[in-house]
Amino acid sequence: MPTIKDVAAEAGVTSTTVSRVLNNRGYISEETREKVYSAMEKLNYMPNEMARNLSRQKSDYIGVILPSVEHPYFSKVLHWLEHYVTKHNYKIMVCISENSREKELQYIDLLYSHRVLGIVVCSHIGETMEHLDSNCPLISFEREIAENIPAVLCDNYQGGILAANRLFDAGCRNIAIFNQPTKENIPAYSREKAFMKCCEDKKISGRVVYTDRLAPLSEEFGNNILELMKKNSDLDGIFATSDVMAANIIRACKKMGKRVPEDISIVGFDDTWISTLTYPSITTIHQPVREMCEYAIEAIVKKVKSEKVPSQVVFPVELIDRESTK
Amino acid sequence: MPTIKDVAAEAGVTSTTVSRVLNNRGYISEETREKVYSAMEKLNYMPNEMARNLSRQKSDYIGVILPSVEHPYFSKVLHWLEHYVTKHNYKIMVCISENSREKELQYIDLLYSHRVLGIVVCSHIGETMEHLDSNCPLISFEREIAENIPAVLCDNYQGGILAANRLFDAGCRNIAIFNQPTKENIPAYSREKAFMKCCEDKKISGRVVYTDRLAPLSEEFGNNILELMKKNSDLDGIFATSDVMAANIIRACKKMGKRVPEDISIVGFDDTWISTLTYPSITTIHQPVREMCEYAIEAIVKKVKSEKVPSQVVFPVELIDRESTK
Repeated sequence: MPTIKDVAAEAGVTSTTVSRVLNNRGYISEETREKVYSAMEKLNYMPNEMARNLSRQKSDYIGVILPSVEHPYFSKVLHWLEHYVTKHNYKIMVCISENSREKELQYIDLLYSHRVLGIVVCSHIGETMEHLDSNCPLISFEREIAENIPAVLCDNYQGGILAANRLFDAGCRNIAIFNQPTKENIPAYSREKAFMKCCEDKKISGRVVYTDRLAPLSEEFGNNILELMKKNSDLDGIFATSDVMAANIIRACKKMGKRVPEDISIVGFDDTWISTLTYPSITTIHQPVREMCEYAIEAIVKKVKSEKVPSQVVFPVELIDRESTK
Repeated sequence: MPTIKDVAAEAGVTSTTVSRVLNNRGYISEETREKVYSAMEKLNYMPNEMARNLSRQKSDYIGVILPSVEHPYFSKVLHWLEHYVTKHNYKIMVCISENSREKELQYIDLLYSHRVLGIVVCSHIGETMEHLDSNCPLISFEREIAENIPAVLCDNYQGGILAANRLFDAGCRNIAIFNQPTKENIPAYSREKAFMKCCEDKKISGRVVYTDRLAPLSEEFGNNILELMKKNSDLDGIFATSDVMAANIIRACKKMGKRVPEDISIVGFDDTWISTLTYPSITTIHQPVREMCEYAIEAIVKKVKSEKVPSQVVFPVELIDRESTK
């Protein structure tokens, strides 16, 4: 692979001159610039980004830690993070934590040692994070980690209200939220709190049905949902805390001979592509993932420039009406 | 952030000694090693991977170019590539090409300039690739690019035969393959060729139905499938060249009042998570994505060590029986 020296020799200039052309620093005559560019083209020279990064002691990578890249919510998040990282001329380094706290911490150390510009952590599962490097901006996505770490969230509480109201408007009077067992700092908990508050206000029967902690894309999870549906066969409306869960509930209803939405209405959450592929398609709460990702990357860029960013930003959600509700 | 110099000062040794401890080079007494490690721990020192990479003129990144990270096939591929890249202690840099040849070439240049160890290109859409750097191993995933670029494929021809035979065994005599318009070097073309050959051999009616070139996860694609299903309402069996397409066909059948599998049998391709989430679940052709990804990363590791790798490896596929076929 040709080096700066080769380019300099080919162009008949010094390496310093080539470097100045590359970095657009100092005065260079148009003629010299032309000579250097021709030499680069002739030798098919590629600038060494590694060397440039080292000289400024920062890479141009942004690290992203996700629990999964297969779940449609996180693959949507990854899609838009890559989009905005690339737009800012940075590169994305992807780390899959598989919901393991140990892996998350290992990945954070690894990203630090690669001198990434910043890190976006999606759905952090642990408690306090130790040895955080304050020089490396960290943004928490859809989860609150600690006070000093800016969080990008959607309005989960509002989502719970929209879902409960939609089921109420569909005529449902015996409803449930299907959720994974949650802790207070987890978004799904806000959805649950809002949903139950709404049922209370409207004086209708509302309950929480907890699923097992299974991989959401596994067949086991589908079987678990079917069991729970059989145990709760009196329900006439369900708010599922993800579209994947809603799709599993639709499948369970069909197995049980229940018609959606005639016998039971279902509202999902996220508005991922799966919500338009099932039959019936899924009425859901839209998370503005694109805007949230744009904001997360801009927050890192700002923090790199030592600009201040808000400690928490909450994006509004929206109800999308489809076929799974009356 | 503490540097090697700080660690050396803290431990009372020279920077060279610290570097030798870090890189496990030359003789270092146990006592000195202990002192250096304590100093690192005390200062919370992180080795600078950027600097280490520069000194060996290679990064420890492997680049991956994918058309999408949202499509369940490619998100499965990314999941397993990340798994095996991490297993080899390398890091993954993800580039989303969105099926644009221009973006693919830009990303390849970018990956070269970051001195990646190697590149896996998934579903390359262009023709010949220019200015390929022979120092940087490139592996083509599920697509043949050129003779000098090793390709990792699944047995698409065999997949077409298995699908046609499965429909024949379900009693279907009027069948079609739903495909996107393809070129000869594209895997879906082999599936089509095998499928039509099988129909001919069995003397049953077989046809090719081409969909429009639409984003496979969009609602527009679903509408296109519904239109095509209405135009081909005589069919009693369909081989869809992806599970996502099969899910769209199931949705279209329900909209038309056709029962799956009673009125029409459907076979998908890929065996992604969507195939167990629809109702009925999808009988499909399993691609051994995990094994293919393991092989692709090992091929890059071998090429980095200047070992030879086969120019093409074809992995066997398998029929997975589920509910969408009689």
